[in-house]
Amino acid sequence: MTVTLARIVLASLVEPGNAVLARLVRTSGPVEALRQLLDGPDAPDDVASLSLAARARLGDRDPWRLAEEAREAAERLGARLVTPEDADWPTRAEDLARMSRGAATGLDVDSQPPVCLWVRGAGSVAETVDRSVAVVGARAASQYGLYMATELGFGLAERGWTVLSGGAYGIDAAAHRGALGAGGRTVAVLACGIDTVYPVAHAGLFEQIAAEGLLLSEWPPGATPHRTRFLVRNRLIAALSRGTVVVEAAARSGARSTARRAFQLNRVLMACPGPATSATSEGSNAEIRDHHARLVTTPDQILEEVGRIGEYAAPPVRGRATERDGLDALTARVLDAVPRGRAISAAEIAVVAGVSPTDARRNLPALVARELVVEDEQGRFQTRRRPVARPAA
Amino acid sequence: MTVTLARIVLASLVEPGNAVLARLVRTSGPVEALRQLLDGPDAPDDVASLSLAARARLGDRDPWRLAEEAREAAERLGARLVTPEDADWPTRAEDLARMSRGAATGLDVDSQPPVCLWVRGAGSVAETVDRSVAVVGARAASQYGLYMATELGFGLAERGWTVLSGGAYGIDAAAHRGALGAGGRTVAVLACGIDTVYPVAHAGLFEQIAAEGLLLSEWPPGATPHRTRFLVRNRLIAALSRGTVVVEAAARSGARSTARRAFQLNRVLMACPGPATSATSEGSNAEIRDHHARLVTTPDQILEEVGRIGEYAAPPVRGRATERDGLDALTARVLDAVPRGRAISAAEIAVVAGVSPTDARRNLPALVARELVVEDEQGRFQTRRRPVARPAA
Repeated sequence: MTVTLARIVLASLVEPGNAVLARLVRTSGPVEALRQLLDGPDAPDDVASLSLAARARLGDRDPWRLAEEAREAAERLGARLVTPEDADWPTRAEDLARMSRGAATGLDVDSQPPVCLWVRGAGSVAETVDRSVAVVGARAASQYGLYMATELGFGLAERGWTVLSGGAYGIDAAAHRGALGAGGRTVAVLACGIDTVYPVAHAGLFEQIAAEGLLLSEWPPGATPHRTRFLVRNRLIAALSRGTVVVEAAARSGARSTARRAFQLNRVLMACPGPATSATSEGSNAEIRDHHARLVTTPDQILEEVGRIGEYAAPPVRGRATERDGLDALTARVLDAVPRGRAISAAEIAVVAGVSPTDARRNLPALVARELVVEDEQGRFQTRRRPVARPAA
Repeated sequence: MTVTLARIVLASLVEPGNAVLARLVRTSGPVEALRQLLDGPDAPDDVASLSLAARARLGDRDPWRLAEEAREAAERLGARLVTPEDADWPTRAEDLARMSRGAATGLDVDSQPPVCLWVRGAGSVAETVDRSVAVVGARAASQYGLYMATELGFGLAERGWTVLSGGAYGIDAAAHRGALGAGGRTVAVLACGIDTVYPVAHAGLFEQIAAEGLLLSEWPPGATPHRTRFLVRNRLIAALSRGTVVVEAAARSGARSTARRAFQLNRVLMACPGPATSATSEGSNAEIRDHHARLVTTPDQILEEVGRIGEYAAPPVRGRATERDGLDALTARVLDAVPRGRAISAAEIAVVAGVSPTDARRNLPALVARELVVEDEQGRFQTRRRPVARPAA
């Protein structure tokens, strides 16, 4: 109980992901961490400086009262709190404590696991995000990007997977709508209090998501969204999902920060290809080009990456089958040498195909049997008047 | 002289790339190879069978007469012959004799180097193709594909590189036109006699190519194009160039056969990304997805792959620079916490940014100095009314 309240206070006084706080909580637990934070001065430097910020934010309010108020505010919205002490906690979030690849960047002070999560929606958080894929991308998406996000969201949900994203315009909203359209589950991870609808135009969408899936936030009710919070939030989208798909992202895009986190967490990173001429695909194409992201174009290709081994296998990209498919190379060459419109002899066919007359004579009957070639009374051959796809020269 | 004539006869009687003939020529030279071919019966099986086809094609004509006629036909077109005995021979073609990767497919009987080349155009073949990139793709290209092929052809030529392609509609023609538009050199490798214009609509284009670059063919004058010849020809496009770019290719496309050859030859293989929704990009996207091709979107990225080490380096994909760029992570966080439209105190900013008030106070002056933030008389801060790009949430 006090542990839960302590976590609420910590989440209210310190921005999520803070490395100093995470260390405190790991070593001393939430209650002791809060105590040290509130009588900061006689603490080591980094704690002292964090303590200053925390106490400035607390002001003259009573911490436990603050926690109660946050709980009440959440309850009024039908939201609940989930903490690492709960069975419902999505343990994958803890991977944030040990990011492996190239994670020593300036913003990584913000990369630690959440202290607690406010949740709207009936489902279990742990179970809902277990088989989930993050579908992220630009807010200023193109029609192509919106189409892809909707299709992938739909396809993943249709296959029983949960879609995970932010709550923004563009790719985020399209991915959620796709999943909802398939009657599936989708999770929006917010960068503000769970009582705040940002953007406001998504009020209806958020209600639907809360009804069919989950709304999650690390921030206490009342917290407003701002740039840093989006970037901090992105690490959680990357951590909670099995893999991240960047559908469409400009060279500079928050989606790329999510991608970077997924990469650092050794999560499967995927991206959709886009026209080289499209600014909204510059970032996603770059992730593929740099071999950070695997190119994906279909839900099956995504599940091939994130699914358990052998659970899914996307069909290789193939064109429509043609009648030539069954033929061995030699027979196919003979077929290619048979003209359309005029009949020639087996010897002539051999010449054009560059095979011996014997080979030509041996293979032509099979082609006649398959009705690919017709033989006339003079024993001359031509192909049936069927369009046979030619390769690009 | 007789060697040259022998090569012409061989090229007239046996389809290019034939493995048996290549072995004969390597071991016994062209003249002796021709002799063995013409009195085939008492030769080993595979030679005997090839000999049958060759003699069927020769009919009752005199081989040396045949060669002379081919030379005369070529001369009438202002075409010349180039053979491995000439200094002008593009030695890179010889790599076809030893393809390394997964080259054991049915059609690889056709993968050997050319016996000789008919050439139209003033330039040296060896020198013209030395710094060349193959730009290939679908005939039924999209507007996007045609645009990319033209842009890449133009950009490569502009940088002093030669464009290499086939003579087909779509990507081939667009790549040539792009190179010609830049006043550069471009080479069309034909799948028929150098006297044959296929497609006929490209008569004007071929004349331009012959004037500014080169037309090449392994086939003697009079040879007509057909499917197998396109595929055989593709190996030469892959071999002569330093690398191949697949601009746009359907799942089934001749361009993919060129790509496969480039891959087998350990040539740099590149592809342009395209919309997942575009059938004409299915093949090119698949080459990238399978890690056969490197994703490229600009001429500089292509030259980064094929150029000598350090000769070229494409600028990494970046968005427009913003005023935040100079800032360290901490200062950037402080900036992000400063509201637009209303002024707040340094302490409040520290709270929102999740940094200590000291850190906030220490960093705000720098932001004021950079005119990113304004301080009012009460020592409260707000950002200047400038749109600061937000990341996609």
